[in-house]
Formats: sequence, C-alpha cells, structure tokens
Amino acid sequence: MEGRPTKGRLFYLKTYFCKMDIIYTYQQLYSFCTAIFLRMGCSETDAAIASKALIAADLRGIDSHGVARLTGYVRLWEAKRVNASPQLKIVHETPSTAVVDGDAGLGLVVAPYAMQVAIDKAAKVGTGWVSVKNSNHFGIAGYHAMMALPNEMIGIAMTNASALVAPTFSTERMLGTNPIAVAIPAGTEPAFVADFATTTAANGKLEILQRKNADTPLGWVQTKEGNASTNANELKNGGALLPLGSDREHSSHKGYALGAIVDIFSAILSGANYGPWVPPFPAYVPMPEHMPGEGIGHFFGAMRIDAFRSADDFKLHMDKWIKRFRSAKTMVGEEKVLIPGDPEREMEIKRMKEGIPLVNSVVEDLKNLGQRLSVSF
Amino acid sequence: MEGRPTKGRLFYLKTYFCKMDIIYTYQQLYSFCTAIFLRMGCSETDAAIASKALIAADLRGIDSHGVARLTGYVRLWEAKRVNASPQLKIVHETPSTAVVDGDAGLGLVVAPYAMQVAIDKAAKVGTGWVSVKNSNHFGIAGYHAMMALPNEMIGIAMTNASALVAPTFSTERMLGTNPIAVAIPAGTEPAFVADFATTTAANGKLEILQRKNADTPLGWVQTKEGNASTNANELKNGGALLPLGSDREHSSHKGYALGAIVDIFSAILSGANYGPWVPPFPAYVPMPEHMPGEGIGHFFGAMRIDAFRSADDFKLHMDKWIKRFRSAKTMVGEEKVLIPGDPEREMEIKRMKEGIPLVNSVVEDLKNLGQRLSVSF
Repeated sequence: MEGRPTKGRLFYLKTYFCKMDIIYTYQQLYSFCTAIFLRMGCSETDAAIASKALIAADLRGIDSHGVARLTGYVRLWEAKRVNASPQLKIVHETPSTAVVDGDAGLGLVVAPYAMQVAIDKAAKVGTGWVSVKNSNHFGIAGYHAMMALPNEMIGIAMTNASALVAPTFSTERMLGTNPIAVAIPAGTEPAFVADFATTTAANGKLEILQRKNADTPLGWVQTKEGNASTNANELKNGGALLPLGSDREHSSHKGYALGAIVDIFSAILSGANYGPWVPPFPAYVPMPEHMPGEGIGHFFGAMRIDAFRSADDFKLHMDKWIKRFRSAKTMVGEEKVLIPGDPEREMEIKRMKEGIPLVNSVVEDLKNLGQRLSVSF
Repeated sequence: MEGRPTKGRLFYLKTYFCKMDIIYTYQQLYSFCTAIFLRMGCSETDAAIASKALIAADLRGIDSHGVARLTGYVRLWEAKRVNASPQLKIVHETPSTAVVDGDAGLGLVVAPYAMQVAIDKAAKVGTGWVSVKNSNHFGIAGYHAMMALPNEMIGIAMTNASALVAPTFSTERMLGTNPIAVAIPAGTEPAFVADFATTTAANGKLEILQRKNADTPLGWVQTKEGNASTNANELKNGGALLPLGSDREHSSHKGYALGAIVDIFSAILSGANYGPWVPPFPAYVPMPEHMPGEGIGHFFGAMRIDAFRSADDFKLHMDKWIKRFRSAKTMVGEEKVLIPGDPEREMEIKRMKEGIPLVNSVVEDLKNLGQRLSVSF
C-alpha cells in the first residue's frame, strides 16, 4: 500500500534461492572472471583487481552488478569502448585533490586506482578527493568506498551512469541511477556501509520483477508521458526511473538534486560525459551524439579519522551510535532496526561459506561467453 | 494521489502572500534582529553575522528557519544554552581538516566561522573539511554552503538537529531532519544550490499545514506505533517524520542512511551530541539524559574548482549542464524543469525588492520579544 511503512524488507531477497539457482563457490567465479579478463588482454594484476571488484557485488547480494554483467563488459571491449591495457594517470593535482584519466579502462580497474590516490592523499594531508574521467562502469560503489576502512579512514565513492532517470517535472531521461557509497569505520561493531542508487528503485530491482513477470509498486517508474505506472518494463516503452522521493509531493526534487550532485562531482569536475551524454552500458546501444567529455565519470573521497579526532574516541562513539540505533524500538512485526551495510555483510558471510547462487539465464550466458573465448565454466 | 508525479509544485508557496501577511523590508528585519542580538550580549560583528544568516532564510522563502525563530534563539540564551560571546577555536587540524569548538555560541555565528576555515584550507591545499562541536542551530544550510561561491569553490554544509525522524522499521525518533546543502558555481548561469532536509518533508512544511488545519499527504509522518498517518499534528502525539523515501518499498532506508551520514560527519567526527541525544531547539524541552558530546554538530566542506580543472572549463560545462537540464522535456502542465536553487533565488530577488511578508502570529511574537527586550518593532 502506498505511503504505508511496509513490513516486507526481505521481499527482494526471495528470488535469490529459488529452485532454478545453481550454486558456485567464490573461487569458481573468481577463476572464470580472471580467465575472461586475461583473454580480453588485461594484465594479471588488472584481471585480479577487476574480478575481485566485480564478484564483490555477487557476494554482497547485489546480483545485478556482479558476474551477470561480465558479458556486458566483454561486449564493450569487443566494441572497442573498453581498453584492456589502460595507462592510468593523474592529469591534475593539489595536495588534497586529483583528476585521474582512466584511459577508457574498465571502471573495475580504474576505480581502485583512483580510490588509492585518494587514500594516499588523505594519509598526507588529512583528506583526498579524486574525480575521474574516461572510465567505464565500476561495479558497486560500496566496494571502492570500503577500501578506506582498513586505513582508519571514511571512504566515499560515487559514479554517474547512462541516463534512465527523469528529473522532477520531466519526461526525459537525464540522469543515471548515480549511486553514492559512504563507508565509516567503527570499533568492535562492524563498519557502517551505505551504498545506494539516488533513485527510488535501482534498475536491478526492475530486472528482478521483469524475470518474475511482476508489477512494480507505484512510484518507481513513470510512463513516457510522465504518468504513474506499475509496469516493470516501462523503460522499454520510453518511460523513466524516478528519483528518490518518487514524486514532487514526496520530495523527488531531493533525489534529483542528489543524482545531479553525483553527476557534477563525477563528470564536470573531471571532464567526463554528463547528463544524457553518458555512454550506455549495452554495447549495442549507439553512443550519444555530440558528447561533451570523455567516458564515464566517478568521484572518490577518503577522510582520515584522526585528521578530526583520535581514532579511538571516534570508534568508541561510532560503536555507541550503532548500538543505540540497532536497539531502537521497532514497529510490530519488525525484528530490529538495521545499520546501513548489515544485510550486505550478512550476505557476504553466508555466500563466502555456502556459495553464490546464479539464476539459470546468467549461467547460460556465462557458459556461452566461456565457449566463445575458450574458457571453461 | 500517491505515487503520481504531482503537478502542484507551488502549493507550498501559496501561504506566503495571504491577506494576513504584513510586509517588512529586509532592512527593517535586519535592524530589529541586530538590536536583539546586541541585547543578548553579542558583539556588533557577531550580531551582524547572525542577522544576515537568519534573514537569509526569510529572503529565500524558507520562512520556518528565519525571523520566526528569533524568539527561540533568545529563549535558548535565557536558558543559558547559548553563549552570546563565544571564543571560537580550532581544537584539532591537518592541512585539509579541522575541528572547531563553537563554545556554545549561536550556530548562526559559529557556522560562518567554520565555513571560512574550510575555505581558507581549500585555498591552500585544494579542499577544506571542518567538523564542528558545541554549537547550536545554524539557520539554513544553503547560506553557509554559498559562502564558497565567490571563491570559485564548491561549498557543502550540513548539520544534525534534535531527533524527530524514525529510521526505517522504527517507531522511535532517532535523527533530526539533518539537512545537506551543496552550492556549485557556474559561469553565466546562476549557481546550482541544493539545500534539503533528508526527510520526505521538512518540519516547516508540517507547521504550515498545522496553521491551515490541513492534512499531510501519506508518507510524510507516521503514528507513535509506526502506522501511516495524514495528521499534521502527529509529532505531538508521539509520532515521527519519515526519512526521504517515506517507506521501505520506496527506499526510506536511503533517506535514513543520508540522515545518519549527516549525523556522523557532524557529531562523531567532532565530539558533538548525536542521534537521540542532540539538544532540542525549544528551550522548554528538557535536555536529553547522559549526553555523549557537546552541543549540536555541523560539517562543512569547500573544494576549489581549479584543484580539479581550470575554472573556465568547469564553468563552461556547468553552464551547458544547467541549460540542458532546464530545457529538458516536461510533463503536460509543467512549464520547465527546475535547477536546484531556482525557486529560492527567484524568491530572494522578489523579496529584496517587494519586502518579506510575515504572518500575523510571527509579527505578534516579534512585537512581544521587542517589548520584553526594549527594542521597537
């Protein structure tokens, strides 16, 4: 029911362990991905970096961004939109900032490089901020933000993406789902890891409903004319995803502003493409005309905790924050209040142990890919 | 109608110019506010800084955060929760970061000081990031973020506030409306200025509906038990505001995560109070027990544009971004797609010229305040 706090928080997990799923170990998927990236011409180091970043999505339960996209990355390489041996470099910098040119590399490789630049700068002057141009899709934002955690830093990662989202009052797709991730270390408690698309629903959730032939709730998508819709295939009809907030009355202008900020930090600071000019992920979709920049843009930040106060004091209070929120009173039927990152961390532990389930269509797709590139799956 | 992109973007402006309003010039309000702050014991400099910050809200159409709150600030001073002559100081710093102790000063004075520290650091090392403890309410976030604009910098401002918002699945008020503002310079186009509470509706919008005896849309508030409600007075019954997204099905966990990030950056990095322990604005509400920090927390950031690329190139593309979005196709009945900051900038121009309308109850309140402190209004 619209506007009603729903009780079904696990509804989106239910598709994960259906009868059709085939379970793979992390190591099986890692070996396969690495072999594919090597076939593309990646170095051994880059193949390992890309595989880890990609499969992090499957481990954490964000199935839409994991190995299900491997074929898509290969097709971009085949279309010469991805450079398998990029020369990554810093093209502009100050003590706390840099712009990285991704040289059309895999975002899965460019992003960890750029995040490391941010971390290195934070180690020296307290914080580091890196905007990236000429990159491609980087998997899940949370993986890159979490690189800061072992360094006792807060990590931030965001990226733009090809346009699927209509700003408030518009019928035109102008922004990607433009996710934001923020990872914050704690003491004895697990880290706080928020990682979310700046839309009401990420595209991956639509894909799950499409496979089930199910409707979306109102407020996720609109028709080509800007009217309300519950059709999970609405984007194929020229419709659009809605910004976080869904409609003006529920503050979709805030989700639009958030997506816009991600776009500007990722692409206008760096010189990447922005708005409706961001290159599409599917290689068969033609590139936009008159593109104003280079590739896709990302933005990364790292803030050293002890650049603000002692890391021990910070962690003490972060633990207290987490415990207080986790023990907040719940609605009838809800077990507990979650801390951002809880479901993904629990999923990662489970899948590391029990394996990663893939739906049949993804398995078939990976088998075909393996045959095509002579890698067994 | 729920889930439907609404056509009534101006519905919240309609209360501004009703018959009961009395119009004041900017100068009239400025003189009155300055005189009141001087009576409180503020220095002339601080009284001017605080008045400008406060009335910026009235000018920009965010009436709930302007002179309507002046009496509230005075009451906090009378209750000895506000120090009118604070010794503001940096208590910890690196080249790109600082923690500022606000010495229990007016947030309206502490925030511009801290934002200036961020700007000065950005001038030297590319970016500056300042977390603030021991402060009070700072007016509108956008005013402080916009201080970066004349310096060719991006400005960021956020603050925590006393708890009115229930996290997803919770019935307990754990977070404030915790706003985020991001101000981004452009070339010939006006600056992009986003400034929004991380809730579906800010508390000020509820206050407007309360005065009109009107209902809220579903998705703004919940009852004490966590059920849906359209009662604009629900908070008085123990209910709560809802995070941006409204309910789980529409991704309220994202609004909750955003509010949490603001809370952590503002208070756990600095040593201020957080979550349910943030001190309340109304002086008659008792302070929370066992407070873990000092006062309210803020967080500010400044990023020098030319720390990333030439300011000319940036502005050229920012103008192109703004023009493209402003000309995006609209739904039937909508004139144009807005750029964040458009309505507030238009309102500021109008009110500077035509004056600032105050509702009768605010006028009465200010007259009483003036009589009490021997300042004529």
